[in-house]
Amino acid sequence: MTRQTFTKEYQGAVRYLVEELAKAGVKSLFTPGGNILGKLEGSDLEAPAVMTGSHLDTVSSGGCFDGTAGVAAALEAARVIRERGAKHRLPVAFVVFAEEEGGRFGWGLLGSSVWSGRVHPDQLRTIKDKEGVGFLEALERAGMGETVHSLLRPEDVAAMVEIHVEQGGILEREQRKIGVVEAIAGIRQMVVTVQGVANHAGTTPMGDRFDALQGAAQIICAVEETALAAGSGAVATVGRVACEPGQANVIPGSVSFTVDIRHASGGRLDTMAGDILRKAEKICRWRGLEVRVSEKTRVEPVKLSDRLCRMVEKHSRARQVDPLRMVSGAGHDTGVMASLCEAAIIFLPSKGGLSHCPEEWTSLEDIVLGTEILVDTVLELAI
Amino acid sequence: MTRQTFTKEYQGAVRYLVEELAKAGVKSLFTPGGNILGKLEGSDLEAPAVMTGSHLDTVSSGGCFDGTAGVAAALEAARVIRERGAKHRLPVAFVVFAEEEGGRFGWGLLGSSVWSGRVHPDQLRTIKDKEGVGFLEALERAGMGETVHSLLRPEDVAAMVEIHVEQGGILEREQRKIGVVEAIAGIRQMVVTVQGVANHAGTTPMGDRFDALQGAAQIICAVEETALAAGSGAVATVGRVACEPGQANVIPGSVSFTVDIRHASGGRLDTMAGDILRKAEKICRWRGLEVRVSEKTRVEPVKLSDRLCRMVEKHSRARQVDPLRMVSGAGHDTGVMASLCEAAIIFLPSKGGLSHCPEEWTSLEDIVLGTEILVDTVLELAI
Repeated sequence: MTRQTFTKEYQGAVRYLVEELAKAGVKSLFTPGGNILGKLEGSDLEAPAVMTGSHLDTVSSGGCFDGTAGVAAALEAARVIRERGAKHRLPVAFVVFAEEEGGRFGWGLLGSSVWSGRVHPDQLRTIKDKEGVGFLEALERAGMGETVHSLLRPEDVAAMVEIHVEQGGILEREQRKIGVVEAIAGIRQMVVTVQGVANHAGTTPMGDRFDALQGAAQIICAVEETALAAGSGAVATVGRVACEPGQANVIPGSVSFTVDIRHASGGRLDTMAGDILRKAEKICRWRGLEVRVSEKTRVEPVKLSDRLCRMVEKHSRARQVDPLRMVSGAGHDTGVMASLCEAAIIFLPSKGGLSHCPEEWTSLEDIVLGTEILVDTVLELAI
Repeated sequence: MTRQTFTKEYQGAVRYLVEELAKAGVKSLFTPGGNILGKLEGSDLEAPAVMTGSHLDTVSSGGCFDGTAGVAAALEAARVIRERGAKHRLPVAFVVFAEEEGGRFGWGLLGSSVWSGRVHPDQLRTIKDKEGVGFLEALERAGMGETVHSLLRPEDVAAMVEIHVEQGGILEREQRKIGVVEAIAGIRQMVVTVQGVANHAGTTPMGDRFDALQGAAQIICAVEETALAAGSGAVATVGRVACEPGQANVIPGSVSFTVDIRHASGGRLDTMAGDILRKAEKICRWRGLEVRVSEKTRVEPVKLSDRLCRMVEKHSRARQVDPLRMVSGAGHDTGVMASLCEAAIIFLPSKGGLSHCPEEWTSLEDIVLGTEILVDTVLELAI
């Protein structure tokens, strides 16, 4: 599944969704940042909305559930609320956020960030995909130019509840059907560069080497040790490594690699980053190497609404389901929305913990269960 | 200094050398594989030759001494022998081997390998540079098409003595002026591929990971440990590493890297390769990863002539120089020639142990000293 923002495949999905929402009596509009907003008015036309939804874009060669499951759940919620003729005072809104993955334009959570005012709409003019097509140009071509011109304000939205697949293996391992996300981990992404001296692999005795890759390998091991020592809830990953000059018969003179650290506590994030830096400096001092660390990405942790978490837990238990409180290691649009309103995320099990790959899978049964709990929660909030 | 085989820069160097040899009464010919052969006949026209020389090609952005120092020493030896009017029974031959570095055509020691019959001349038809120019086409364009059509036979050559810069820092550290190479290390080059499972860097707890890079980093550390444990004379290098999918926020699913092991003993090479394989398998078994190791290059160690080594040592001491017996970690054309005749290499100090870079440096004084010892040795062999 490759369906990147504003492409033909994306337009097809948008068309289907807009048509299906219309059948449920929901009229859709497009908002700043290329998001879709469908609204079912309640009895109070001035009241802030209760929102649900997710995203339709995927990573390249991704799966069918990340984002899409939450959009399908929102659509089904619209139908169910309509069919039941449920009375609600607050409007219920159904949303699709654009470019959540950052797969086309290289900027994750972009649609929700623009709509919520975190990223200024003018910045969209400078954003292009790899082929040089601008975000706004692609948006116009997709027929999704704005019909709603105003940014979201806190007074427009009362709550946001998103269904999303877990993208990890905890629910499956713990044999739970529903995860209640109480926080979204913060992220520190750094690039570590180790500088040594490139030299001949045959003529340089082991004791005369300043091998940047040997230093880097020790630091990479230390990254894992740091995360393990920080206990459950802490993760650290080296995802990319580049080695110069990169020849089998030359001792590497320079190696750079990424470090991605995540934790729900900003303080713990800083401690972990500091530990890794200290270990890297110690290793390099001992080896006569130089090390530089530069921070590339800094996302602060987000605490979601405890009141909404308890509400989701209550509706889960009412359906004989024992929910699990969790921290999301991945970012979500609802984390952006949490700056405007009470927010919650319902996690559904990911088979084998796999995500961002064709093997991504969540059972229909689990999606149905999540949708029922979503409808119960949204209606309690909207009534 | 970038002077790759048969290029304009190379042709200029060849022209200069051929003219200077001619002034010393040495007529030059071209041999199979693009080598230059100049001969100073002795009193016995049927006798096998005593050879000296090296190579003129450099790596890209290399130095002024690797190869060139040995060619300059050979040219000076021709002049000195001629000026002294030294009598010799055996012919003295001055050679330049083509494509020693493999920098243009990707095949090191190619000229000497073809001339000595180790690589069949027909193979040259299939060898091309990165621009698609064939070896034979480049050879013809350079005006170096063969004038000697026969391959070298053992009965054509009595001995080969090459001067070469050390390309390492041992002579400098030990404060010696002359190295006497008694062996050329064998090489085992392998590619190690570690297979894990790519997954989300945020949502996959540390305990649920099959991180190919963490396994690879531990193996890379083990490569160094193995070389250190094998003691002086053993080196092992990881020079290249590639990580898939190579994104900061994705746990690496697959990592491959090179391992280059060198030692003067074939048995020790096999032991080191076996140790590394066992450690890699243990690390990967423990982590639930798969590992594959494939051998890419296998060069057996070459023992040079002890008689010639002792002769070089004798002539060194006669000049109040204390020579150091050494193992060459790099391959040399003289190692190829050793299959045909007695062979020796005289090493000269490399400043800071640097090589294959613009900083490469050997003092003129050291080159003069080496050339004097070369002349003494060649004349003793040729008389």
